Amino acid sequence: MEKVEVMSCKIKSRSKIASGDWLYLENIEYSDLSGKIYNWESAMRVKGQGAVAVIATMQPSGAIILVRQFRPPADGYVIEFPAGLIDDGELPEVTAVRELREETGYHSSVVEVMPPMFSSPGLSGETVAMVLSVVDENAPENQKLVTDFDDSEDIETFIVKRGELQTFLKERKAAGDLLDSKVVSYMLGSL
Amino acid sequence: MEKVEVMSCKIKSRSKIASGDWLYLENIEYSDLSGKIYNWESAMRVKGQGAVAVIATMQPSGAIILVRQFRPPADGYVIEFPAGLIDDGELPEVTAVRELREETGYHSSVVEVMPPMFSSPGLSGETVAMVLSVVDENAPENQKLVTDFDDSEDIETFIVKRGELQTFLKERKAAGDLLDSKVVSYMLGSL
Repeated sequence: MEKVEVMSCKIKSRSKIASGDWLYLENIEYSDLSGKIYNWESAMRVKGQGAVAVIATMQPSGAIILVRQFRPPADGYVIEFPAGLIDDGELPEVTAVRELREETGYHSSVVEVMPPMFSSPGLSGETVAMVLSVVDENAPENQKLVTDFDDSEDIETFIVKRGELQTFLKERKAAGDLLDSKVVSYMLGSL
Repeated sequence: MEKVEVMSCKIKSRSKIASGDWLYLENIEYSDLSGKIYNWESAMRVKGQGAVAVIATMQPSGAIILVRQFRPPADGYVIEFPAGLIDDGELPEVTAVRELREETGYHSSVVEVMPPMFSSPGLSGETVAMVLSVVDENAPENQKLVTDFDDSEDIETFIVKRGELQTFLKERKAAGDLLDSKVVSYMLGSL
């Protein structure tokens, strides 16, 4: 029997266009279904294994944890799930627990590490692993919260009941804050 | 009374590091709460008013529309909400109706245009406006679907019941597809 080749678009080559200290641009040459060649540009991080975003649920209340922080690329303060870059050799679940504690002071347990996914796949190959976590709000270590970030980060924590998420985001938007599309998507899914 | 200045991080300057044809890298100099200066790199599109993502609900079934397409930066096929870049001078609601028709063949009505938000605010200032839309699945124009994209795009449409979204994403992942973080966030919000 003749082998049937499944048609799909494929990357043929990648070449670096330019690099900064943390990000670089590359040109991707790829072939379409008919074998025709196209070019596409992508922005990538120079180092790193991607990022994690922490979907942390308070137990027993069920509220979720959001942060508000200054994001230079967005030129403003953005409401997001707590997130951070995975350190060299670090497991995503370790990053998730570390970042949540550093950014919000909360100690958490990981429930599930979801596979790396794409936040802006037309622009960048950067991945984010979503980590589902729980925070025991009655635990002694979660009564007196100690954060660990510097002035350049300026992170504020919000505990938001799921049923109040839409109202919360409207209020923050009205107050001049910017919104992350993952948080808004989560809110839309909950309606 | 003395004027009280609210402390916040602020951008001081932006300078272009390098540019490709479609993307460029810039260095952002910003000050933290104490006035200390830091640098941050960002990837931006050379042209354009950002993107839209279409959250389209079929009426009356309530199912949602997802697409699967090759994304060179992700090096694979990604499951996403239908999306596209806003053309020069185009309103986001016009982009949403146009892109949904081009990518899936469905004719839609816009319910709400959400404000521009950030998909990867640590990496890029790129914005996406989420557009809530409905598709009348009994309308004559939605019975015989005509798409309008070329081989280089290779877009497949999926109509997924909300209650089956988690299973659908697991199946696509197992089949080798990649996932967009907005779709996964929407699914997590619906649980």
